[in-house]
Amino acid sequence: MQKVKPALLRGFDQEYLPHEQLQFNHLVDVIRRNFELYGFLPIETPSAERREVLTSKGGVEKEIYALTRLAEADDDEAATKGALRFDLTVPLARYVAMRERELAFPFRRYQIQRVWRGETPQARKGRFREFYQCDIDIINREKLSYLAEAEIPSVVYSVFREMAIGEFRIRINNRKVLKGLLQEFRVPEDKSAEVLRTLDKVEKEEAARIVEELVRAGLPNAPATRLYQLIAAKRDTRETLAELGEMRNELCVQGVEELRKVVEAMGQLGVPQAAFAVDLSVVRGLDYYTGTIYETRLVAHPDIGSICSGGRYDDLASYFTETRLPGVGISIGLTRLFSKLSEAGLLRPLARTPAEAIVVTMDGRYLANYLEIATRLRAAGINTEVYLEQAKLKNQLAYADRKGFRVAVIAGENEFAEAKVQIKNLTTQEATVHPMGELVRAVQAALNDSTPKA
Amino acid sequence: MQKVKPALLRGFDQEYLPHEQLQFNHLVDVIRRNFELYGFLPIETPSAERREVLTSKGGVEKEIYALTRLAEADDDEAATKGALRFDLTVPLARYVAMRERELAFPFRRYQIQRVWRGETPQARKGRFREFYQCDIDIINREKLSYLAEAEIPSVVYSVFREMAIGEFRIRINNRKVLKGLLQEFRVPEDKSAEVLRTLDKVEKEEAARIVEELVRAGLPNAPATRLYQLIAAKRDTRETLAELGEMRNELCVQGVEELRKVVEAMGQLGVPQAAFAVDLSVVRGLDYYTGTIYETRLVAHPDIGSICSGGRYDDLASYFTETRLPGVGISIGLTRLFSKLSEAGLLRPLARTPAEAIVVTMDGRYLANYLEIATRLRAAGINTEVYLEQAKLKNQLAYADRKGFRVAVIAGENEFAEAKVQIKNLTTQEATVHPMGELVRAVQAALNDSTPKA
Repeated sequence: MQKVKPALLRGFDQEYLPHEQLQFNHLVDVIRRNFELYGFLPIETPSAERREVLTSKGGVEKEIYALTRLAEADDDEAATKGALRFDLTVPLARYVAMRERELAFPFRRYQIQRVWRGETPQARKGRFREFYQCDIDIINREKLSYLAEAEIPSVVYSVFREMAIGEFRIRINNRKVLKGLLQEFRVPEDKSAEVLRTLDKVEKEEAARIVEELVRAGLPNAPATRLYQLIAAKRDTRETLAELGEMRNELCVQGVEELRKVVEAMGQLGVPQAAFAVDLSVVRGLDYYTGTIYETRLVAHPDIGSICSGGRYDDLASYFTETRLPGVGISIGLTRLFSKLSEAGLLRPLARTPAEAIVVTMDGRYLANYLEIATRLRAAGINTEVYLEQAKLKNQLAYADRKGFRVAVIAGENEFAEAKVQIKNLTTQEATVHPMGELVRAVQAALNDSTPKA
Repeated sequence: MQKVKPALLRGFDQEYLPHEQLQFNHLVDVIRRNFELYGFLPIETPSAERREVLTSKGGVEKEIYALTRLAEADDDEAATKGALRFDLTVPLARYVAMRERELAFPFRRYQIQRVWRGETPQARKGRFREFYQCDIDIINREKLSYLAEAEIPSVVYSVFREMAIGEFRIRINNRKVLKGLLQEFRVPEDKSAEVLRTLDKVEKEEAARIVEELVRAGLPNAPATRLYQLIAAKRDTRETLAELGEMRNELCVQGVEELRKVVEAMGQLGVPQAAFAVDLSVVRGLDYYTGTIYETRLVAHPDIGSICSGGRYDDLASYFTETRLPGVGISIGLTRLFSKLSEAGLLRPLARTPAEAIVVTMDGRYLANYLEIATRLRAAGINTEVYLEQAKLKNQLAYADRKGFRVAVIAGENEFAEAKVQIKNLTTQEATVHPMGELVRAVQAALNDSTPKA
C-alpha cells in the first residue's frame, strides 16, 4: 500500500514525547494550582469565534486563521463566519460582555488554552503558530482598586517560585509615568505611540539607534539623549522611585504614587524585594494599558526575554458593551517558555511515566494473580501497570527501566507457593521479599525509598 | 461607538459559566487520574494536521474543517495544507508512526483534547461541532495480548465509578463472533458491512424494520428473523455465552473463547459482574474493529446512549508505516456526556469557586493586615481570595455567598486591637473569635466543618 508520510505542519509542530508531555503537564498543574490558590475561576472559550468579534479592535486580521470546509457544505456558520482565536483577551472580553449579568464582580478568571497566529514560525525564538497561553485577569465594573495591580504580580511570583526554574525578576512600570515623561519631554500626542515603541526596544538595541529614532520622532537631540538615559539607566527600585519623585508632571506624580502603593502591597502579599524591580524600560507596546505594566525575566537567562507580561487597562470590552470594565491581567506564553526552558536545561527531570509500580508477568499460569496484585495496588491509589504481553523477565525489566518505573513487583512459582512477593526498588536495584498480605505496605515503603527516574 | 454583538458560532457554543467549568474540570481530573492509575502516558497533538494525514483513510472529507488565512499570506503550510483533526485516533496513528523508534512498546497513551467535526449541531442529542474526546489506547508491535482487551473496560469501570453518575453497564461483544454469525447465516462477504450497520440499530428501531432491511440485504425471511432474535434477545452474560457455545463456526468459536477470557480477566481486574454484560447487540459500525468491542450506558438513562465506546483493532497505522500495530482503545465524548449529565441532573454540586476562604476588607486602615492574612493562609495551602474593592461588609458577604466561599475571615478595629480574628463558617453562619496567631488552624478547622456550597 502507498504510505502517507507521517509529518507535521510548520509552526503546528510543538508535539512532545510522553515524558516531555508529563513535564509540560507538570508546569500546567503548577500554574493552575497557583491561580486557584489566589481564587481565580476557570473558564474555557471555543477555539473559533465570529470573525467580527476577533477583528473588533482591528489591526490583527493579517495573523488570523479562518475556518473553511474541506468539502462543500451548507449552512455552516463556522466555515463562513468563524476564525480561530489569536489570544485569550478578546474571547474574555466577549465572554464577560455576553454573561455580564450571570457573573459576580470583581470577576477573577484564569484560562489555559491554545491560540493560533499566522506569524512566521521561528523555533529559535520559541515562536510557533499554535501555542498555549495561561492568562489571569481581574475585572470589575466601573472601578478597580490598585490592590488588584499588586495582587497580579504576587500570583506571578507564586507560580515561578513553585516552578523552580531559577532566579527571576518581575519588572514593573506604570503607563502614567511613561505618558507623564513624554509630556515632560514635549513629545506631541500623535507621536507618543511611536516614541513608546522606540523605548520598548531600549534593552535590545544600541543607544545611538534609539536616540536617532527619538530624534526622527521630533525630539531635539539633547532631550532625546536624556530621555534615553532616564529610561535605560540601571537603578534599584528605591533609586528609581526617588528619581521619579523629582518629577512635577501631574500624570507622572499620579503614576509614581500608584507605583509606590503597588510596591508596598506586593511586599504585604509576600513578594520579596529581590523578586521584583521598578524598571522604566518596561514599556509594553500596546496602547491598551493605562496603569501598572509587567514583564518577568529569568535573571540567568535575559536572552529568553519576558516569560510573563501584562498590565492594567481601563476598559476590557468597549467593543461589545457600554459597561466600563477596568481590569488587570498577565499572560504566560507556556509553549514558548517550555521550549526555552527545555533548551536551557532548566526543566527538572520528572518520572517518565505517571505509573510508579510495574507488575511483571513471568509465568502465564499466574496471570490471575498478577491482575489481582495490580488491582490491590490501584485500590490503594498506587499508579500501576501490568506487563500484559508474554516476554522474558529480562525484557520486561528493560521495558520497566526505559519507562522509568520506580518499583517492580515480581512473583513466580516459588513466591506464590509461599504466599510471598518480591519487591524490587528500581532506583537502588535492591529486592526484598514480603508476605503477600503486606503487598501494599511493602510497595509504598519501596516508593518512599526511591526517587523518580528521569 | 458602534458595538459588535458578543455571540458564539453555532456548534462552537459549549461554553460554561465558571461554576460549570469547575464541574467540567472535575470530570477531566477524574478521567485523567484514573488513566494515570493504570499507567497510561499523556500525549497532546497539534490541532491542525496535514490534510493528507487526516484523509488517509478516506470517507471523512465532508466533515473536516480546513484552515485558511483571513488576509492573504505567503508561505503558510497550515493555510494551504492544514485542517483541524476530527478525532484523536488518526493523530495517534500519525504520532506512533512518526516516533516509533522513540516509544516503548506496549505504548499506552491517553489524550484529552478537542476535536472538530462539521456535523449538523443538535444540542438535544449533545452533538456539537467542537467537542472534547478523552481517549486511551494500548498499542503493541505485531501482537497484542487479550489482557489488554480486558484492561480497557476495567479503566472505564474505574473512571465512571469515581465519577459517581449512577449505575452504568459496560456492554461488550466480539467482532469475530459477529462475523462468524454472518457466515453461519450465509450473508455474502460484500453485504456484511451493510448487515452490521443494520444490526447496529437493533436497540433503536422496530423488529419489523430490522428484519425488512436484512431481507433487503439478501437474507431469506426466516433466517433474517432468527438473526434478529439472536442479536436482540435480552440475556445475561452467562446465558449469552452458553448460547454462543452452541455455535460451530470457526470464527465464532474463536470469538467466544476470546469473550470468555476477557470476561474472566475483567473480574480479576476488579470489575464486578453487575457493571458489565456480554451483549450481542453491540455492533459498532466501524470496519476497523476486529476483536472485543465496547459500549457503556447509564442504566437509568438508556436514552443518553453510549457514553464510552471503542474496541480492538488489528492495525493502527497501516496508512503511515509498514509496522503492524495492533491495539485496543476507547473514547469518552466528554462534551456530549457533560451536556447530557447536566440535563439529567446527574452532576454532583461542587463549590462555585476553587477558593475556600475570603478575607473581607472592612476598614481601609488595615489593608496591609488583610493582605498579610491572605498571604499566611495561601502559604498554608488554603485557596484564598481577598475582597480588593471598597464595599460595605454586607455587600462583601453577599459576594462571598454568591461565589460560594465556605469561610470568611473578618477583622476590624476591635479585633486588630486585641490581636484577634473572627472566622465565619458560611455554611452554618456561625462565627467564632480566635487569637490571630491561630488564624491558619482556625480557618482549617472551619473548613473541615463546612461543606462546599453549590
